[in-house]
Amino acid sequence: MNVLWIFAHPEGRSLNAALRDEGLRALEESGHSYRVSDLYAMKWNPVVGHDDFDREPGERLLVASASQEAYETGRLSADIRAEQEKLAWADAIVLQFPMWWYGMPAILKGWFDRVLVKGLGYGIAAEDGTVLRYGDGKLTGKRGMVVTTIGARESSIGPRGVHGGLDDLLFPLHHGTFWYTGIAPLPPYAVLSADRLDDAGFAAAADGLRDRLRTLETAEPIPFRYQNRGDYDENLVLRGDLATGRTDLAVHLRG
Amino acid sequence: MNVLWIFAHPEGRSLNAALRDEGLRALEESGHSYRVSDLYAMKWNPVVGHDDFDREPGERLLVASASQEAYETGRLSADIRAEQEKLAWADAIVLQFPMWWYGMPAILKGWFDRVLVKGLGYGIAAEDGTVLRYGDGKLTGKRGMVVTTIGARESSIGPRGVHGGLDDLLFPLHHGTFWYTGIAPLPPYAVLSADRLDDAGFAAAADGLRDRLRTLETAEPIPFRYQNRGDYDENLVLRGDLATGRTDLAVHLRG
Repeated sequence: MNVLWIFAHPEGRSLNAALRDEGLRALEESGHSYRVSDLYAMKWNPVVGHDDFDREPGERLLVASASQEAYETGRLSADIRAEQEKLAWADAIVLQFPMWWYGMPAILKGWFDRVLVKGLGYGIAAEDGTVLRYGDGKLTGKRGMVVTTIGARESSIGPRGVHGGLDDLLFPLHHGTFWYTGIAPLPPYAVLSADRLDDAGFAAAADGLRDRLRTLETAEPIPFRYQNRGDYDENLVLRGDLATGRTDLAVHLRG
Repeated sequence: MNVLWIFAHPEGRSLNAALRDEGLRALEESGHSYRVSDLYAMKWNPVVGHDDFDREPGERLLVASASQEAYETGRLSADIRAEQEKLAWADAIVLQFPMWWYGMPAILKGWFDRVLVKGLGYGIAAEDGTVLRYGDGKLTGKRGMVVTTIGARESSIGPRGVHGGLDDLLFPLHHGTFWYTGIAPLPPYAVLSADRLDDAGFAAAADGLRDRLRTLETAEPIPFRYQNRGDYDENLVLRGDLATGRTDLAVHLRG
């Protein structure tokens, strides 16, 4: 497989960087090809703006339509096009970041804000007008996996833990971003208590990561429901006979 | 009250900007003072880096400890100190943004990444060693309210809607950021179907916003549980006799 590894940590000598290097070695050993987007090293600009779409600074900017027009006419900025080209090349994306405020660092959030423009990430319709998203999209067929380090200890970020469960915290990314665009999200790989890891802890974390990367091609994705296969009604609400009476985010998993 | 209005939209002639202007007028009419952080206009840098902490580019960066040290010695970068000063001044924070990929635009996520340094936003302990967070923190006493525009229609982002419920999508911000640092989050104000709003729709959205701002000082916050008042056990897991058998994010609301 072709793997795009997106790395979002400011320090090249961090636990995160050491894990990344272990991960890339594991990919090589499994015969995969990889490319790396090291966002800090690239000085990636995460802020959507006029320059993205070849617009003058004073021009009125409607982000969705401007992004679609620039995408379709090849006028997106070169840094965005370069990432889109890597994304097109990749069969799988690994997204590695330290959890900051229960989400991605801004530099990584802005990768999605800028790269997944209208016409590529959203605003896509079939010939009959059906909106293609949540399972069906231009990125269908690709896989995505989060690798994250978290300061919290394991119990506190599990079900009923004070920080909320990891699946719920990552729902906007797994479901609202990956799955929305068609990318099948794999279960995340999280290193807990990451700021208190000793050598043995790092070795275990690296082992776990290598194990997970060995099954990058075969692991079962998180089984989110498809928007267009009958589970949601015409108001895009889950049918009453599915996960009846529940309103938690896991209702969006196929039963 | 003193209100800090943080605005994160690239276009000064947008629906969002018009709503902001309506909102600021409403604050004035209610006798509040306000200051605005217009992140795009300020060219706010959302990327945590060496410069934040007065560190040399080549120096090894441990974000948490570097941020705490710079905070405590007054060596944080001037742009971060200016935002911290506004935050200290404010009794309430209004956070206005278009929802992008089910979260904040990167420029706004990076406001939290950079401003809420260790020693101010996290890593705070009482004299007896108790970690102060989730209700108790340096920002306790302040209120926070999200004002957001969303392309999706109302049914699709409610409970059982295909996009997930708004409270769940905003949990990392409401609970994991606001409440974590002590800020009491008010229910969010969301303008749905925002990219298809006609004049009457805008007038209704502006009316709704003015109504919500009139009760900024008195509205009941989202009743998240306190970490340190007995609801969580020593592993930071919710006690078994509270919201028994449930694992949805609403278990973290006081019953």
